[in-house]
Amino acid sequence: MSGLSEFELIETLLKPLAANAGGAFNLSDDAAVLPDAPPGEVFVVTKDALAVGTHMLASDPPGEMARKALRVNLSDLAAMGAKPVGFFMSLCLGSESNDAFLTQFVEGLAQDVEAFSIPLMGGDVIRHEGAFIVTITAIGSVARGGVLRRNGARPGDSLWVTGSIGDGALGLMAARHELTHLPPESQAALVQRYRTPEPRLAMGQSIVGLASACIDVSDGLVADVEHICKASSVGCRIESSLIPLSPAAEDVIGLDGGLWPNVLTGGDDYELAFAVPEERETQLQELIKKLHIPFSRIGCFEEGSDVIVVDQKGTPFDLPRHGYRHK
Amino acid sequence: MSGLSEFELIETLLKPLAANAGGAFNLSDDAAVLPDAPPGEVFVVTKDALAVGTHMLASDPPGEMARKALRVNLSDLAAMGAKPVGFFMSLCLGSESNDAFLTQFVEGLAQDVEAFSIPLMGGDVIRHEGAFIVTITAIGSVARGGVLRRNGARPGDSLWVTGSIGDGALGLMAARHELTHLPPESQAALVQRYRTPEPRLAMGQSIVGLASACIDVSDGLVADVEHICKASSVGCRIESSLIPLSPAAEDVIGLDGGLWPNVLTGGDDYELAFAVPEERETQLQELIKKLHIPFSRIGCFEEGSDVIVVDQKGTPFDLPRHGYRHK
Repeated sequence: MSGLSEFELIETLLKPLAANAGGAFNLSDDAAVLPDAPPGEVFVVTKDALAVGTHMLASDPPGEMARKALRVNLSDLAAMGAKPVGFFMSLCLGSESNDAFLTQFVEGLAQDVEAFSIPLMGGDVIRHEGAFIVTITAIGSVARGGVLRRNGARPGDSLWVTGSIGDGALGLMAARHELTHLPPESQAALVQRYRTPEPRLAMGQSIVGLASACIDVSDGLVADVEHICKASSVGCRIESSLIPLSPAAEDVIGLDGGLWPNVLTGGDDYELAFAVPEERETQLQELIKKLHIPFSRIGCFEEGSDVIVVDQKGTPFDLPRHGYRHK
Repeated sequence: MSGLSEFELIETLLKPLAANAGGAFNLSDDAAVLPDAPPGEVFVVTKDALAVGTHMLASDPPGEMARKALRVNLSDLAAMGAKPVGFFMSLCLGSESNDAFLTQFVEGLAQDVEAFSIPLMGGDVIRHEGAFIVTITAIGSVARGGVLRRNGARPGDSLWVTGSIGDGALGLMAARHELTHLPPESQAALVQRYRTPEPRLAMGQSIVGLASACIDVSDGLVADVEHICKASSVGCRIESSLIPLSPAAEDVIGLDGGLWPNVLTGGDDYELAFAVPEERETQLQELIKKLHIPFSRIGCFEEGSDVIVVDQKGTPFDLPRHGYRHK
């Protein structure tokens, strides 16, 4: 049990995170007032919960739990093409949530509040019988009519992803000490990716008006591309050899090719997957040069409704499960 | 464990609740787009979590858990003078959250989605090791500059409350079978107030421009008036004989005067407590006639910083604790 009461926690630890949000009233009122949306923009809102034991390991550093919780929500804003405005947070403290845990949690959160210029605007703190849960509601803004949706992909559009795929799922394995045969630095790199994913905010904002559909890879590459396909009434063919892997993931797959399905269907990468019509590929190439964000063309949308992943000979992989589901 | 997957739950049970929110995209995207704020209005946002075992009893009907979770958040909007726009919800399912539980939960929620014209706009469903938790983020709108705050009470302003005070705390006792000496209908009335409080939305909207400070009574009458006093740098004198009690609460206190402190410091009433400057009392009296909402003048703000509750002889009560804190 924590020594800090819920009131004290808000007063001493959380209030500083609200300093840059006038409408948060220092967390002292029943609700916060949102600033006006910038001219010509609309607000987008997302809400995701993360629980220790389901989305985070009890052994994860508390500061990184906080950063992950915020980043997972920022990743949803990125997938809509939005820039961050503010966030609301409910902390559901379990028996392990003592003052040291909370202090570290808030220190980590403060780092990302600054890094992403997104103030805390409100929320609450409760106690419950169970493990720690944090739920965050993140608010962003995007040009009216520019919101990236899942439903705009058309046959012939190419499929792109940012960064590298598979590190989330492999990082969870590494954090569980299931990849101890790897060099320590590779294990550390994967764990880092699992614990503190990089929300692709700049990228999401840059492909507004360019991508025809977008999603963030949270359920797993294949499942998330399926979400685009379902919303857009199209199919997709992904070339496995084009899927970008990090050096650490290359190590893992080099040592055990049987983990390849984990790359395709594991979750928690928080990269963007998006569709680009052929006529806008030149514009995309110019963006690549400008942004210095790694991204890769990994497939093509087509008529139909299935997502298939093929090897270099064109043989489809038989995927044991489509989509990562937290159990 | 539930037979419905998280995806199926969203698809079959929750999607219909989003039907009236265009920007919710049938819950099929990464985030929702808020509608434009009505001309001259701003958005207010609140976020509250409720856990079985802390804010709800495992024996509460699931449909009433849903309605309470929504209403507690609507009460925060009411306290700011706002009208509902939409809400986001995270369901953290525990081991008891089977399909029957979820179906009843959503049925109850659907009732209030309709009653309060507030569509579901997004959120998520997770599983965790612990009891059921629901967190809701509610969004409302209010005239720019009209937001009711806690910090505007001045010495000489009168203190008013809507409805009746104490039913929340006494209702919890009744739900725990601690008031079995009461007539069954009184027990039922109190339990009902505890499980499905009435957010005072019409009242909150009506006192915009009239009240100088406002809060909803969630932590307990004395604690919440203290919140106003702290924010406004004033004290307050409450006359116990003026505090409105429901007939059932009258029964309880008539039988056991020792429960009086529970009325003063118990939480979960979700009535509004607000300050009105003397020069606006006539305007308030006109409102009373028009609205048919019961409300009562129970005290007066004054110089200082303390909240005291006095009996008819002017003797202050010695309150064992100020403010209800969920343990």
